Amino acid sequence: MRLPVELPKAYRLLNHGPTVLVSSAHGGRRNIMAAAWNSGLDFNPAKVMVVIDRNTWTRELVEASGEFALNVPCRAQARTTLDVGSVSGREIGEGDKFSRFRLETFPASHIAAPLLSGCVAWLECRLLPEPHNQQAHDLFIGEVVAAWADSRVFSGGRWHFPDSEPNLRTIHYIAGGSFLAIGEAFDVSPSPQDS
Amino acid sequence: MRLPVELPKAYRLLNHGPTVLVSSAHGGRRNIMAAAWNSGLDFNPAKVMVVIDRNTWTRELVEASGEFALNVPCRAQARTTLDVGSVSGREIGEGDKFSRFRLETFPASHIAAPLLSGCVAWLECRLLPEPHNQQAHDLFIGEVVAAWADSRVFSGGRWHFPDSEPNLRTIHYIAGGSFLAIGEAFDVSPSPQDS
Repeated sequence: MRLPVELPKAYRLLNHGPTVLVSSAHGGRRNIMAAAWNSGLDFNPAKVMVVIDRNTWTRELVEASGEFALNVPCRAQARTTLDVGSVSGREIGEGDKFSRFRLETFPASHIAAPLLSGCVAWLECRLLPEPHNQQAHDLFIGEVVAAWADSRVFSGGRWHFPDSEPNLRTIHYIAGGSFLAIGEAFDVSPSPQDS
Repeated sequence: MRLPVELPKAYRLLNHGPTVLVSSAHGGRRNIMAAAWNSGLDFNPAKVMVVIDRNTWTRELVEASGEFALNVPCRAQARTTLDVGSVSGREIGEGDKFSRFRLETFPASHIAAPLLSGCVAWLECRLLPEPHNQQAHDLFIGEVVAAWADSRVFSGGRWHFPDSEPNLRTIHYIAGGSFLAIGEAFDVSPSPQDS
């Protein structure tokens, strides 16, 4: 079940470093690309950052619309992640990456960018325009205006990946088609204060 | 064995989103803190970014020295990661966090910041001063001037965590003492181009 995530806890959706898919839309066109270079940036208001190369079509759509979504894919979507990260939306003659790769979407609540079905978390973001960061570093900063997670793997502000569903784990891209899935959860107590 | 990592591949040390430890030194003083908000930023020259809160002592040392190191801890160091992320170096009366938590270090090759023994990767960085990012977002950008990895888990530009050594896996912080260890590696081929 898709449940809302409190915005001050939205950073926890990205805190463990998953590769995300950036979706965008403007003027009736839409696109989606992979981005391993993303991070939380602030708690409240919740902000995130993501690197979007200057040669991508996503970049045009994000700059024109002032919005983007970060979709957190799971292992079942690893091939999709590689696919949408390997082809430019500009190179697709007819349709778009969603039709080309047969990707289902659903509407976001606050922005026009579509959200990708089958992901395990979604962050709807409004671009905070920063010309220097965008031009010098390809770096885009967004305020999170809505966040969602699949309650099978994230609820109460925590990830809890069931051992029985390895395909629901988040994926962490390295290079050349190689990924790591996220692994075991564990808790740690701090050392005693008087040590 | 600690081996150098080619700088254009240094981003791969962070690409899967591990929590890192930021070490710094200036004027004979040194510090170390945890940072989950980090990311690659460019390939060549290799650049990384990390969020360093304005209230930290690390911040002072980084701004004064113009240098920092990102140390990538492994599961054996999860408590250390929590410890150095929970106490400010300013609050420690005598000595520093290294003495307080009995942390061993070794010298970096290009910068004054100490590197933490027992980590699985290290990125030595020279600060690229960006007053707006530092002041508005607590965001620090560095050029990687040297990078190293433990060849038991990273070599040939790839992570390869042995099943027999769970304590060598990278750790990915969520909140409140909860971590996820990185999990299984897998490879994916793209969909056929004419699909």
